[in-house]
Amino acid sequence: MAAWRERLAGVRGVLLDISGVLYDGGEGGGTPIAGSVEAVARLKRSGLKVRFCTNESQKSRRELVQLLRRLGFHLSEGEVTAPAPAACQLLRARGLRPHLLVHDGLRSEFHQVDTSNPNCVVIADAAEGFSFQNMNKAFQVLMELETPVLISLGKGRYYKEAAGLMLDVGAYTKALEYACGIEAEVVGKPSPEFFKSALQELGVDAHQAVMIGDDIVGDVGGAQRCGMRALQVRTGKFRPSDENHPEVRADGYVANLAEAVDLLLQHAQP
Amino acid sequence: MAAWRERLAGVRGVLLDISGVLYDGGEGGGTPIAGSVEAVARLKRSGLKVRFCTNESQKSRRELVQLLRRLGFHLSEGEVTAPAPAACQLLRARGLRPHLLVHDGLRSEFHQVDTSNPNCVVIADAAEGFSFQNMNKAFQVLMELETPVLISLGKGRYYKEAAGLMLDVGAYTKALEYACGIEAEVVGKPSPEFFKSALQELGVDAHQAVMIGDDIVGDVGGAQRCGMRALQVRTGKFRPSDENHPEVRADGYVANLAEAVDLLLQHAQP
Repeated sequence: MAAWRERLAGVRGVLLDISGVLYDGGEGGGTPIAGSVEAVARLKRSGLKVRFCTNESQKSRRELVQLLRRLGFHLSEGEVTAPAPAACQLLRARGLRPHLLVHDGLRSEFHQVDTSNPNCVVIADAAEGFSFQNMNKAFQVLMELETPVLISLGKGRYYKEAAGLMLDVGAYTKALEYACGIEAEVVGKPSPEFFKSALQELGVDAHQAVMIGDDIVGDVGGAQRCGMRALQVRTGKFRPSDENHPEVRADGYVANLAEAVDLLLQHAQP
Repeated sequence: MAAWRERLAGVRGVLLDISGVLYDGGEGGGTPIAGSVEAVARLKRSGLKVRFCTNESQKSRRELVQLLRRLGFHLSEGEVTAPAPAACQLLRARGLRPHLLVHDGLRSEFHQVDTSNPNCVVIADAAEGFSFQNMNKAFQVLMELETPVLISLGKGRYYKEAAGLMLDVGAYTKALEYACGIEAEVVGKPSPEFFKSALQELGVDAHQAVMIGDDIVGDVGGAQRCGMRALQVRTGKFRPSDENHPEVRADGYVANLAEAVDLLLQHAQP
């Protein structure tokens, strides 16, 4: 593999995944990953452009930022690209009224959206909210529509909490897709539209940007398909087999965000 | 379409699906579908061979037969081919110790199976048992195995109860397949092995047998792929769009089991 200098040449902006890169969720909100608080601070001081790009769909953007601040990170809501606000734009643009299969923590993101007489389903990481009753209700709403529309906030397979790996929204989206014989529209990583809007907000071209994430498919593969470079951290949901993934090869694998920032500060050109 | 006489020529045995053909499940166990109790009785008197072939995986075979008897049907456990006993055979033959993601009503079927230190997951129609916690536990068991083995009792998309359409095991199997990046082994319809063992117990060759079911894919498509003929009833989970299914065309569509039996008694040759 080429030297880091070549691999990181010309990088001017960085998109940072949040869960599994900055912190691991769990009891009491979660814990920062060792070195990540300082790494974010160093990156922001470096002159490189920085933006956060998350598929977090259990909490509102506000709650997520509040949590991260409690954990010691410095960031504001305006620096975060998240799927729920993007989904609200899409719903309004297409006159869609969603039935929401989402975590209670996310509902506030949709308070300006008409949810009466639903003509689509929005599914997000509902965690304990993925009861049989809630899943079946969403299924029944879809089956009663002439053209069922299912909008999924991300399609992650699983994420990591202190208690272990947890099923993510993608698994439940697959269940509804199969039951209804339909394909969901994904809002969030790895959707190219989502990466492109994050890049636009970051303010650099794809070839000047690097994504740092713990998800080999959603973060690394998705960013690379948009012309970005991508590093995978060996924290969060990372598994050793990711380094031999049959379809996706990261531009580099690093122990954690702190190592990624070390390398960027050494080799990128802010 | 050819006349019924041609379509049913040479039929000597009948496989009957149960849920959606004999009865609809729901509060208090369910209700017989109009005309089905008499239709089963007439069929059994006719000289045609008859066997029941179900993907029921919420109840044990014993409980299912008890329920059907309460609803007025005459049948015994020995006349029913069901996936749980077939799964137990497979588990024993391969030395597999399952983690069971099944309805409490089905557990008795596995009482002779070693479930300590699991090296596979068996998933069945758990209904309310498909909580996030139970799904996540099964997911974690699979992810800890070097070679994850997932055995699914059927792969139905949904079934019909009095309260409406209900998500079936297939949807939840898809969720685990996606999350783990694996493919489940199906025991039950439409697995060819399952149909073949039902045919063997029925005692006629595939070309002399007809399957009657409400599931265009699981019953009709599955039976046809084994060389049988298959009729779809317009009861249970039947939906009008089934008659224009892109891949499966039944040998005939009938209002209900009573009409199917009328036609069989008129045109088949017992």
